Amino acid sequence: MRVPLAGLPERVTIYEVGPRDGLQNEKTIVPPDVKAEFVMRLADAGLRTIETTSFVHPKWVPQLADAEEVLAALPRRPGVRHPVLVPNERGLERALRNGVTEIAIFGSATETFARRNLNRTVDESIAMFAPVVERARAEGLWVRAYVSMVCGDPWEGDVPIEQVVSVARRLMDLGCSQLSLGDTIGVGTPGQVTALIEALAAAGIGPDRIAVHFHDTYGQALANTLAALRAGVTTVDASAGGIGGCPYAESATGNLATEDLVWMLHGLGIDTGVDLEALVATSRWMAERLGRPSPSRVVQALSPRAPRAEAPAARESNEEHR
Amino acid sequence: MRVPLAGLPERVTIYEVGPRDGLQNEKTIVPPDVKAEFVMRLADAGLRTIETTSFVHPKWVPQLADAEEVLAALPRRPGVRHPVLVPNERGLERALRNGVTEIAIFGSATETFARRNLNRTVDESIAMFAPVVERARAEGLWVRAYVSMVCGDPWEGDVPIEQVVSVARRLMDLGCSQLSLGDTIGVGTPGQVTALIEALAAAGIGPDRIAVHFHDTYGQALANTLAALRAGVTTVDASAGGIGGCPYAESATGNLATEDLVWMLHGLGIDTGVDLEALVATSRWMAERLGRPSPSRVVQALSPRAPRAEAPAARESNEEHR
Repeated sequence: MRVPLAGLPERVTIYEVGPRDGLQNEKTIVPPDVKAEFVMRLADAGLRTIETTSFVHPKWVPQLADAEEVLAALPRRPGVRHPVLVPNERGLERALRNGVTEIAIFGSATETFARRNLNRTVDESIAMFAPVVERARAEGLWVRAYVSMVCGDPWEGDVPIEQVVSVARRLMDLGCSQLSLGDTIGVGTPGQVTALIEALAAAGIGPDRIAVHFHDTYGQALANTLAALRAGVTTVDASAGGIGGCPYAESATGNLATEDLVWMLHGLGIDTGVDLEALVATSRWMAERLGRPSPSRVVQALSPRAPRAEAPAARESNEEHR
Repeated sequence: MRVPLAGLPERVTIYEVGPRDGLQNEKTIVPPDVKAEFVMRLADAGLRTIETTSFVHPKWVPQLADAEEVLAALPRRPGVRHPVLVPNERGLERALRNGVTEIAIFGSATETFARRNLNRTVDESIAMFAPVVERARAEGLWVRAYVSMVCGDPWEGDVPIEQVVSVARRLMDLGCSQLSLGDTIGVGTPGQVTALIEALAAAGIGPDRIAVHFHDTYGQALANTLAALRAGVTTVDASAGGIGGCPYAESATGNLATEDLVWMLHGLGIDTGVDLEALVATSRWMAERLGRPSPSRVVQALSPRAPRAEAPAARESNEEHR
């Protein structure tokens, strides 16, 4: 049933991260032709912005060592955007050589994660990004800035909102067009999300330039998304089938599943352009290739192997048949 | 981090359903002393309303055939409420003989589920409940009315809001004190939930008498809870560890996990009285007894066997060390 809720947008842009953020964090390394087919199937299912790969050095992310091959295998189609992650100037060179027109850079709100993920302080990482964004803009590229650990950090604990705003402001000042707020460990709750978006707006980064990137590790991703939509955000990151996020624990979950997001948005009467049935079929196909079940609850619920048997099993009050 | 959100209550009552709705829908039959220990551990973790068992005929729910033994093994403690499910007059007789002071009846918003679960039409089921509630009230018992399939029905599809309101009104008119709205198959979304609560208020059943009972089958339970809290509801049903809901599919999920709910509420600065750590320990203990991992995302995330390894595994942008 589609029932709108006051104060929410009519349309939401889903920024699909499965082929990059998803596959990067899966144990199984998928061949480039399968990756390209995954991206094409996602586009067939109606997704219009698909982060396709990363030009990170293969030493750090062997899962995406085939970025050139994936892009070469991928027929471009009008209306579908294929941003790629670019860590530094060398990555940007590779992206430009391969005809990429949209890139994303990946910063951290905390010093510890900057050090562990970027091998730099926050200041040094922003200094590293500056020439990347400058060159990208000069070449006419669209640039997204991720800021990670916006709600909490596994080493530092709570991350103050002012600290996130400060890093976000500096990243956007480099010339980025969109800011993606990443609750990388999934600990945030709706009040914190709302306060962060309001603080960013007060610092001149309005919700029209903000995307939210939630992880479902603590089950909070959809509730946080609802709060972000209420705060004016209209771009939401999600990963088809919920892939990625935590390669070491099969039961643990990472990225918000695109299907779970679409279920909520369509139920709210919000247009996404996505064909849910085609998307679920794609995620089931990819789960087979990854050799593990999709952590998406919608994919599980709509899977023929998972009978929707709760109702007949309930029998809370069946009186004796006498 | 605790950050409140405008328009939400300061305190929420969690109505714990794990020992009844949870265990009733698990394949494994748990011995009565383990059930009693489960209830006591939940009380130790701060839960103050625990639906403890059911007086349904054992033929229909063999999992709870030991209701008398569980109640006998359970030391009462001040401030902890132990409602039990009562399907009919015979069930009420058993409850009264065992010193129960709070009961719940279980109705259906749809004809098909009434027929399948109660072997009656909706009219016939309300006629069956009338003397149960009348007698219970005369004996001084508190009575809750469940109404199931409030967002959708596996056989009938969408369930019109007016139909739910009509059944709810008739159940409450019998003399019940609280109405629990059950999205039994988990298909609802926040707009539908809000509209339903508003329609009930317009029909004279205000949010102070409403509880919400969401299933996480499609991942919507917490987002729906957030919408219900905004609409004024302050009682939320949940099942410790997320047990129950779908006994035939190990990966599928049923009841909203109490831990996932508590994570959100505490993050919002809402008081629940629950000690999350003690609750997680209880759910891990019960998961061992049930022989399957807890479907709760919080229980998984806080489990020592599921390393929170996303952050260090990400390395989105680690440049070569040259």
